[in-house]
This record gives sequence, structure tokens and C-alpha cells, in this order.
Amino acid sequence: MMKVTVLQNIMSANDQLAEKNRILLDKNKVLGVNVMSSPGAGKTTLLLGTIKRLKDRVKMAVIEADIASTIDADKIAAEGIPALQINTGGQCHIDANMVANALDKLALKDIDLLFVENVGNLICTADFRIGAQRSIMLLSVPEGDDKPFKYPLMFTTVEAVIISKIDYLPLSDFNLEKFKSTVSGMNPKVKLFPLSAKTGEGMAEWTAWLEAQLKEF
Amino acid sequence: MMKVTVLQNIMSANDQLAEKNRILLDKNKVLGVNVMSSPGAGKTTLLLGTIKRLKDRVKMAVIEADIASTIDADKIAAEGIPALQINTGGQCHIDANMVANALDKLALKDIDLLFVENVGNLICTADFRIGAQRSIMLLSVPEGDDKPFKYPLMFTTVEAVIISKIDYLPLSDFNLEKFKSTVSGMNPKVKLFPLSAKTGEGMAEWTAWLEAQLKEF
Repeated sequence: MMKVTVLQNIMSANDQLAEKNRILLDKNKVLGVNVMSSPGAGKTTLLLGTIKRLKDRVKMAVIEADIASTIDADKIAAEGIPALQINTGGQCHIDANMVANALDKLALKDIDLLFVENVGNLICTADFRIGAQRSIMLLSVPEGDDKPFKYPLMFTTVEAVIISKIDYLPLSDFNLEKFKSTVSGMNPKVKLFPLSAKTGEGMAEWTAWLEAQLKEF
Repeated sequence: MMKVTVLQNIMSANDQLAEKNRILLDKNKVLGVNVMSSPGAGKTTLLLGTIKRLKDRVKMAVIEADIASTIDADKIAAEGIPALQINTGGQCHIDANMVANALDKLALKDIDLLFVENVGNLICTADFRIGAQRSIMLLSVPEGDDKPFKYPLMFTTVEAVIISKIDYLPLSDFNLEKFKSTVSGMNPKVKLFPLSAKTGEGMAEWTAWLEAQLKEF
């Protein structure tokens, strides 16, 4: 029982901090987007492609989270976008406290759109709210179309699912229509964006949705 | 401080149970192999291909672990191999206690080689010993060659790394030689098996290693 109580206290403290982060983002008119996926589904490549398409008209920044290394933050910074690396040192997700510390270091009044690239993990990241107003996930074609059944929480807690690496479809048995219908059945309001950040296919629909979120917000 | 103490107690209790599992496996002359990877790296497809190649001469069984669903156990059972599904109900890894319960349900004296297909997770699974005498991981080509830097623990705690889905290499910027040299640098004793369970390329080297482990054991 003690284990359960401690866990509940951690989650409740996290939710309170997440709410503080959200208020801070709202106050500064920053739209936070929590970006989640398995390792290697293409989060950084998606963000790089998004930045290239939007940087002339949207002020962006990225918080990168990894167990170790600064590989992703270095790639983002090379695009001239503020990038802040969190190394979790082994923790399988970021929590609201880590994001609060990162928000302290960013000039929020100069940012419209803040991506938080979470640790590569399809499970733990879905459990921890960080205060972002939108949550999205990527599922890459090579991972297979059965993943919603195996990792249901993630697919039901996001506003948008990016089906990434569709340039691999010709080599794969991934059934795009079946996948879309499975995910829509589990999460009827979800938006689905099949795309390839490498070829650019589908990127316009995704960035149009992002810009619409910025306007609604 | 309380959080840390509780966590240490959990880990220590897990290690003790893992040791019990290992003794039970040793006593029954069963070689346990803990199979880990990101979601969708091809664990089940690798096991299906391995089973097809070895089932005439090796008595195998599989413990399948997933957050939810019995998709993988159903596929294994269709090959005529004993398959037992653990649903962790949200937990991001299996622990020694779950495996102990599964071992209770298997006829260990009729098994030479027991695969434990862990939850799809490149982080948490590496932290929990389950008592298997061998640990392996898969890194699929579409995930990218930078993963050892981002998830170092997993790459340093396994005896073998399967580089899966090499049939995707022509579409990918994955640098196989660079990847091999990175992983060997981090874990000098590791065996590396580039393969495609789909085309069969590289499967013979992997199953030869497995059979050698069975003999050494």
C-alpha cells in the first residue's frame, strides 16, 4: 500500500506543477505542444521540417528531452531556433518539474509555439502531464499498425497522431486505412496526419493544423 | 528521500526474485533469453523466424509481455509453441515477480529455450532483471543509428544486439559500420547480428549463436 500512496503523491504533485506551467504558458500566449513517440519514430525530423516551413511567420522554441546526449538540441539550434536540452539521466519521461525549470530559462514573451520533444517512450510519457496545451504522438510506419492495441493509453490521450515515415509504406505491410479506423475508434476526436518529413508529403496538412491551433488558442 | 528508499527496496526485492527465477531455470536446464527493444522493432517477427528455423531440434516456449492485448502470444501459439501472455496493465516493463508467476505455469522440464519478449520500451526494461541467463536487444534500422548515445544503459547491459529490418537499409541513412563501431565501443563483448526476419538475411548467424549458447549453458 505504501508504494501506491507514494506514487499517488508523486502524480498529484506533478499535476499541480503541470497546471502552473500551463498558466504560465497561457499568460505569455505561448502554445505548448508535447511531442511523444517510441525511440526513432522521427520526432526531431518532424520538428526540423516544421520549423523550416513555419519559421518565417511563427516564433518557435524547442525543449528537447533525452536520457543522455545533446544530439537533438544541436540539430534544432542549427536551424537558428532556441533549443534547450533536458537530460533525464535515466528517467523514462519528463515531468512537470523538469519543464518548469526549462520554462524559467526561456524568453517566453518572444515565443508563440513551444515544442517539448519528450523522451522516446510510448508508455511512461503518457502518464505525466507537463502543462502543454496540446499533446501529439508519432507512430512511424515501420513500427507496425498493431500498436494502438498494445499501447492504448498513448493513443487515447493525444489530440493528433502523426503517421510518420510514410515513404516506407511500399516496403511495409502497414495498413493505413485499418490503422486510421482503429485509432479513430479509440479516440474519436483525434486528428490523423500521415506524412513523411523526409519527402515533405503530408507536411502542409500538419503545419496548417498547427497554425489553426495557434489562432484558436 | 523517502521516494529513493522505496525505489531501492523495490529494486532489491526484484533482484532477489530474479535470482530465484534464474536458479529455477538452471535447475531445469532452461536457457532464458530476455528480448528487449522499442515498440515495433520486430521482436515477435524475429521470434517467429527463429522458431521456424529451430523448432525441429530445440524445444522452445515464449512468455509474451504487453501493456494490453494478446496479439503476439496468438502469433507464437499459431506456430505450435507454448506461449504465455503477460499483460502488465500499464507497467512499462516486466519484473521478476511477473516472470516467476509465468514460470509456474510452464512445463519447464519440456523446454530448452525460453524467450521472454519484454514490453516495447528501450529504457525501463533495462532496469529490471528477470532472471534470464541472456539478455538481448533489437534496434531496427528505421529507428536510426544515433540511439546508443540516447539510450546507453540498454546497449551496455545486453550480450547481443540484433540490428533488425536491414531490408530497410536502401531507404535509410542508417550507417551500419558506424553503428557497429559505436556499440562495440560501449560494450566490447557484445555480439552484433544485422538481419531481416522478413527476407531471412542474417538469420543463420543469429540462430547459430543461440544454439552455441544452448551448448555452452
